[in-house]
Amino acid sequence: MLERYGHGGDLRTAEETFGFPARQFIDFSSNMNPFGPPDGVRRVLVHYADQIDRYPDPAVRGLRAKLALLHRVDEQSIIIGNGAAELIDLVVRALRPSATALAYPCFTEYGDAVMKAGGSIAPIMLSPDNAFALTESMVDASEAKFYMIGSPNNPTGQLVDPALILKLVYRGATVVVDEAFMDFIPEEEKVTLIREAAVHERLFVIRSMTKFFAIPGIRLGYMVGTPEQIAVLRRLQVPWSVNSLAQQIGEAVLEEKDYAARTMAWLQEERPWLIDKLEALGFRVVPGMVNYLLVQLPQLPGLTAASLQFEMGRMGILIRDASHFINLDESYCRFAVKLRHQNEWLLEALGRCLFKFREAGIR
Amino acid sequence: MLERYGHGGDLRTAEETFGFPARQFIDFSSNMNPFGPPDGVRRVLVHYADQIDRYPDPAVRGLRAKLALLHRVDEQSIIIGNGAAELIDLVVRALRPSATALAYPCFTEYGDAVMKAGGSIAPIMLSPDNAFALTESMVDASEAKFYMIGSPNNPTGQLVDPALILKLVYRGATVVVDEAFMDFIPEEEKVTLIREAAVHERLFVIRSMTKFFAIPGIRLGYMVGTPEQIAVLRRLQVPWSVNSLAQQIGEAVLEEKDYAARTMAWLQEERPWLIDKLEALGFRVVPGMVNYLLVQLPQLPGLTAASLQFEMGRMGILIRDASHFINLDESYCRFAVKLRHQNEWLLEALGRCLFKFREAGIR
Repeated sequence: MLERYGHGGDLRTAEETFGFPARQFIDFSSNMNPFGPPDGVRRVLVHYADQIDRYPDPAVRGLRAKLALLHRVDEQSIIIGNGAAELIDLVVRALRPSATALAYPCFTEYGDAVMKAGGSIAPIMLSPDNAFALTESMVDASEAKFYMIGSPNNPTGQLVDPALILKLVYRGATVVVDEAFMDFIPEEEKVTLIREAAVHERLFVIRSMTKFFAIPGIRLGYMVGTPEQIAVLRRLQVPWSVNSLAQQIGEAVLEEKDYAARTMAWLQEERPWLIDKLEALGFRVVPGMVNYLLVQLPQLPGLTAASLQFEMGRMGILIRDASHFINLDESYCRFAVKLRHQNEWLLEALGRCLFKFREAGIR
Repeated sequence: MLERYGHGGDLRTAEETFGFPARQFIDFSSNMNPFGPPDGVRRVLVHYADQIDRYPDPAVRGLRAKLALLHRVDEQSIIIGNGAAELIDLVVRALRPSATALAYPCFTEYGDAVMKAGGSIAPIMLSPDNAFALTESMVDASEAKFYMIGSPNNPTGQLVDPALILKLVYRGATVVVDEAFMDFIPEEEKVTLIREAAVHERLFVIRSMTKFFAIPGIRLGYMVGTPEQIAVLRRLQVPWSVNSLAQQIGEAVLEEKDYAARTMAWLQEERPWLIDKLEALGFRVVPGMVNYLLVQLPQLPGLTAASLQFEMGRMGILIRDASHFINLDESYCRFAVKLRHQNEWLLEALGRCLFKFREAGIR
């Protein structure tokens, strides 16, 4: 299985499993912008050889200033991380909640970070009956003091009503909102909680810069909270944990307005198209808002997320076996939305797999 | 002061303090190989734009395999870190020592990591009377169960007798040896404790790859321990904490045999030369083994590490004010050993500063 060392995008394990080189796979298992990194990234790389012999700015001042301007918050409200993963780990270690409420299915790292820090989990089970939405009645029934919530949530693609999150904060809970995929949402400024996080001491927002700008290799994320809370986190952070290339690339991609517009236009067109085609093949698609889709497989003998992943992998296409997420069974997979010709390859390969399982069932 | 955000090499703070751009400083405050990164680094960077859109290998298999071969230890005995700093933090968090013995002066991060993890410090005070060496009688007098020891030590440049460290291990203590500068020692294989760390469950060795190969911008270090202990550390580590560029550069620089030989030849010639010249100017030099020198200033009115750092900074030369190290007073500075023409600039500027302080004293 491809999830041996963690979740999607592990091309090295794919190479070892399927026996052909990483470059020949089309990777629908990790949720990157299919346009690849914007041109500014290449420009930064050209000059980086002359700067690698200097320590990174330990305070990440340049990137924090740009993000502060973008989100209209104080620079002291921002901490930059070695990927969002570092920030998830850091906030849990700093706040040491006794119990953390997680709404399943959700990103695996939340639970891992809680367990590493010696905490316990208060699970909230989302339901397929309402597309895995976090509802007001679930929130009202929960008595936890600490929440980690993905919005848009991974793997469901569901946006959580920001009013619901603020309700939790107002009633005294601390909430960490993981907005790693928020930049894929049109008019995100209407739903992001970044500006609220900069002033509410019990609200934190984590963002990733690696999905939207397709730069996961270099690791880059940030978190927003009140200046006082962010100062606590910075004291706990490993020195120079954000390398200087990530800092420079982060500053460069924020200038890429055309790339961002092109990405939004592509996704608004491509996601509904892919949903239609998947449904025509017999998949049930959870109506997500972002650049990946959680789908339920048609019922066929022997067809599971694991068996489909294996058959697709042999054809050079990597998909995510979503049964590794708590509260999803072996009928769930997750596919990234990619460019039209790539999505056509996905559909073609899925069609061939379904045919194979159908034939085997009949025989 | 330049140490606002941590220790040496903070060129951004230097820019803000002295008002000219980072590239115009000669930085004797951080201990990098003055040859700059080897050519292999540039070759990796050229191709990296095509790989940045893929996640790093979460298990860092390629680099671990190469290091295992180099040091003749099991791959499972090696963990790669986002700089040595991550590994110092990680080992303290994983082992949770109640008290940690530190021999002062030593690298500031040891104490910071201990305090962050909520531990306490059992100090051992090294003495200038024997060049800040860690001696057998100090070790015999210490009753700690956990030690973090730099060898060669920073800022003193002193190698610690490996037999002394093993003595600690054999009597039941756990020892983390920071060998960040060990690759600058000729015939290092005779003094490194890497092979012992791979088999003794209470011995760990941390190495940095950024000093010898002049790549601190990208962050890269590793630690060796028994496979069982390393597995514990890996479970605690943040996922993908080592970015993919660092992984690739790490693999590339290990092939740079000519660069390594050139570095060793330069250092063996340049260090004694610089020591002579510094002594001729009136500095007392601690006889270190590596690419930096701890020096004591001549006694002149108003001349302190801080005032010298300020005067040198105004001339575009950054030095380390070593009085920020515990157990060193304001008469101590640290200079990196650089290339001959750079060292000449250092000596020239030092000479002018000393003249200035002497003149001011007479007036």
